[in-house]
Amino acid sequence: MFPSACMASVRERCPLVHLITNYVTVNDCANMTICAGGSPIMTDERKDVMDISGMSSAVVLNMGTLNERTVESMLLAGRIANENDVPVIFDPVGAGASSYRNGVADLILRKVRVSVIKGNEGEIGFLSGTGGRVRGVDSMGSDDGRESAESLASRYGCIVGVSGAVDHVSDGRRTMILSNGDGLMGRVSGTGCMLSAVVGAYVGANGPSVESVASAITALNVSGEIAAKTSRGPGSFKTALFDSMYNLTGDEMDAMMRAVECTSSTS
Amino acid sequence: MFPSACMASVRERCPLVHLITNYVTVNDCANMTICAGGSPIMTDERKDVMDISGMSSAVVLNMGTLNERTVESMLLAGRIANENDVPVIFDPVGAGASSYRNGVADLILRKVRVSVIKGNEGEIGFLSGTGGRVRGVDSMGSDDGRESAESLASRYGCIVGVSGAVDHVSDGRRTMILSNGDGLMGRVSGTGCMLSAVVGAYVGANGPSVESVASAITALNVSGEIAAKTSRGPGSFKTALFDSMYNLTGDEMDAMMRAVECTSSTS
Amino acid sequence: MFPSACMASVRERCPLVHLITNYVTVNDCANMTICAGGSPIMTDERKDVMDISGMSSAVVLNMGTLNERTVESMLLAGRIANENDVPVIFDPVGAGASSYRNGVADLILRKVRVSVIKGNEGEIGFLSGTGGRVRGVDSMGSDDGRESAESLASRYGCIVGVSGAVDHVSDGRRTMILSNGDGLMGRVSGTGCMLSAVVGAYVGANGPSVESVASAITALNVSGEIAAKTSRGPGSFKTALFDSMYNLTGDEMDAMMRAVECTSSTS
Repeated sequence: MFPSACMASVRERCPLVHLITNYVTVNDCANMTICAGGSPIMTDERKDVMDISGMSSAVVLNMGTLNERTVESMLLAGRIANENDVPVIFDPVGAGASSYRNGVADLILRKVRVSVIKGNEGEIGFLSGTGGRVRGVDSMGSDDGRESAESLASRYGCIVGVSGAVDHVSDGRRTMILSNGDGLMGRVSGTGCMLSAVVGAYVGANGPSVESVASAITALNVSGEIAAKTSRGPGSFKTALFDSMYNLTGDEMDAMMRAVECTSSTS
Repeated sequence: MFPSACMASVRERCPLVHLITNYVTVNDCANMTICAGGSPIMTDERKDVMDISGMSSAVVLNMGTLNERTVESMLLAGRIANENDVPVIFDPVGAGASSYRNGVADLILRKVRVSVIKGNEGEIGFLSGTGGRVRGVDSMGSDDGRESAESLASRYGCIVGVSGAVDHVSDGRRTMILSNGDGLMGRVSGTGCMLSAVVGAYVGANGPSVESVASAITALNVSGEIAAKTSRGPGSFKTALFDSMYNLTGDEMDAMMRAVECTSSTS
Repeated sequence: MFPSACMASVRERCPLVHLITNYVTVNDCANMTICAGGSPIMTDERKDVMDISGMSSAVVLNMGTLNERTVESMLLAGRIANENDVPVIFDPVGAGASSYRNGVADLILRKVRVSVIKGNEGEIGFLSGTGGRVRGVDSMGSDDGRESAESLASRYGCIVGVSGAVDHVSDGRRTMILSNGDGLMGRVSGTGCMLSAVVGAYVGANGPSVESVASAITALNVSGEIAAKTSRGPGSFKTALFDSMYNLTGDEMDAMMRAVECTSSTS
């Protein structure tokens, strides 16, 4: 099945994933990338980005904590990735929560050709214009993750992943509805950021597709289900989440994946 | 009793806590805020602070790792919080250790109306002028946490929390002496910063008072006592500390709290 | 034996270690410094560095995530450390991976008198000119860690530590070959950075020598062997690594150390 095939490719190729991400969850992003089978590099100095983005297998741009310097670095990393056909994964953390974040998200989407946009229902709902409420950097939900995923994917010609009670992955025509995961994932800061990092590894090894993004989401969410079994709270859950991702087998992922595929009614 | 009532309010209201804090312990602050029942947001870009500080339930300013850009952001966040009646919690990490930190602490206290100052004995002793020695960012103790807490609280018309062998919380007239906690808390980087974040959540939900600050301190320290029982060292203790805070019940907190209240002899 | 004697000195003196390091693994560096017996302080604002570097027992400069501001801070910290006879430990993370990093490494080595250079085989191979390949920030190995350690140590008159399948520590004349550790250390982001922090604590308490650097490496690697016994993957391993370092006894370290000393054939 495709999720285990995508996973095998990540582990075989060990894609170099360049992340420009926030300083809150960056360590977890690095470690989760390793546990997924990739090799992370974090650098946000423009002079360094010049060399690193082009040689990477994927570039992840995460808006968790922006400043003017890192926004410039993200734009540069995106341009260099585009010039070198390196896929760009964009995580618009907090889009909808402040005018500054809205402006940066808009700027990145205008200046950079992104292969994947990955956000929560509030963020993707805001970007797609279908609604979605954001409070701080936490989603307050939206009416329909599927509708906003399809709409945004069609607009930008990319893959969109939306996390929520169920997750949606769409290229605008085909949409996959995924329903793995555990409630404790929402009690740990940065599981969304870690997911973007894992998407970077999966897209870096497999190219951008509904399948590769859905496999990345499934890898993390199935790991969450396994981790929850031995956890006593968010602290031990996070520790176990790294272990579970590292030890996850293709057979487990294929057997545990809960996915439904739909074809867009508007296409 | 008041600590469980304060905790119930945090969990019910899930206050949005805006933290401008250091890059060393920021992830632990985010996760501890969540485990306490709040919702953390970290952002230090001035343009973003404009929107975020005013909509938050509390703003926490932590001096752990300063730079000129983030000092400007702290001053702006403080001003916007003041304009919107959002309580400001100030953690003067390393005050007394360098002239730069001393200057920034002075600047923040002159420009921002703070609701709570939370520091260790060395920092509060330095700020109050009653003494206190600081080596790096670690307190070397002072003669009397109570005296410095009362003095500083009176000077700024705020609540002061001082962590030490025993902890003191004072509004200048009433002082509470708290004696929960475990020695392993001093072997983990950032337990002081995590405490400021928890104070942010408790003050955000309950308003600034001796009770809300004392409840926050008690919540973390009682969690530390519980965590220490199952720990083998600082690594497993930190993991367990998040679990304990998350699972802490009001009954446990009320039963385990060790507190004595005094009235200031000078009032 | 020397490793336990070096450890005892660290725990007795609790050296203040000033680290200017990357924002990815900085929390782990702080906690590992504490578990090793030191007291960490992280600050990279020039005005603060002025006070802190000179009063520290060791200064650690780590290139993991550079930017123009922090490079200036590293140069200043190095100058102040040199003026105050504080030993400087340099970790050239990613040297060989980008022209920017190569330039900064060269600048630091020209402007700052370093006591210890600690890197992986790729980084030290690149700096010594004996070869070594770097991909992102991960070493791809080199022909001979010993040759590059001896060559670089002789050139800069310092101690060089090279981590790899086996580790080498050399002052250019004497070289120690160390073969403790566990494969899981390579599956956790930042074990190399944590090692630099531990070297800072050991050199801060014992002065720079082949013995003190070899003891620091042995302390972390032996802790890794102990941690691996109770771990289920990189997450639980990292947690256990802190516990093991904290609980490590001198007898354990002496008994478990695997070391061979050689005299350079070229001297």
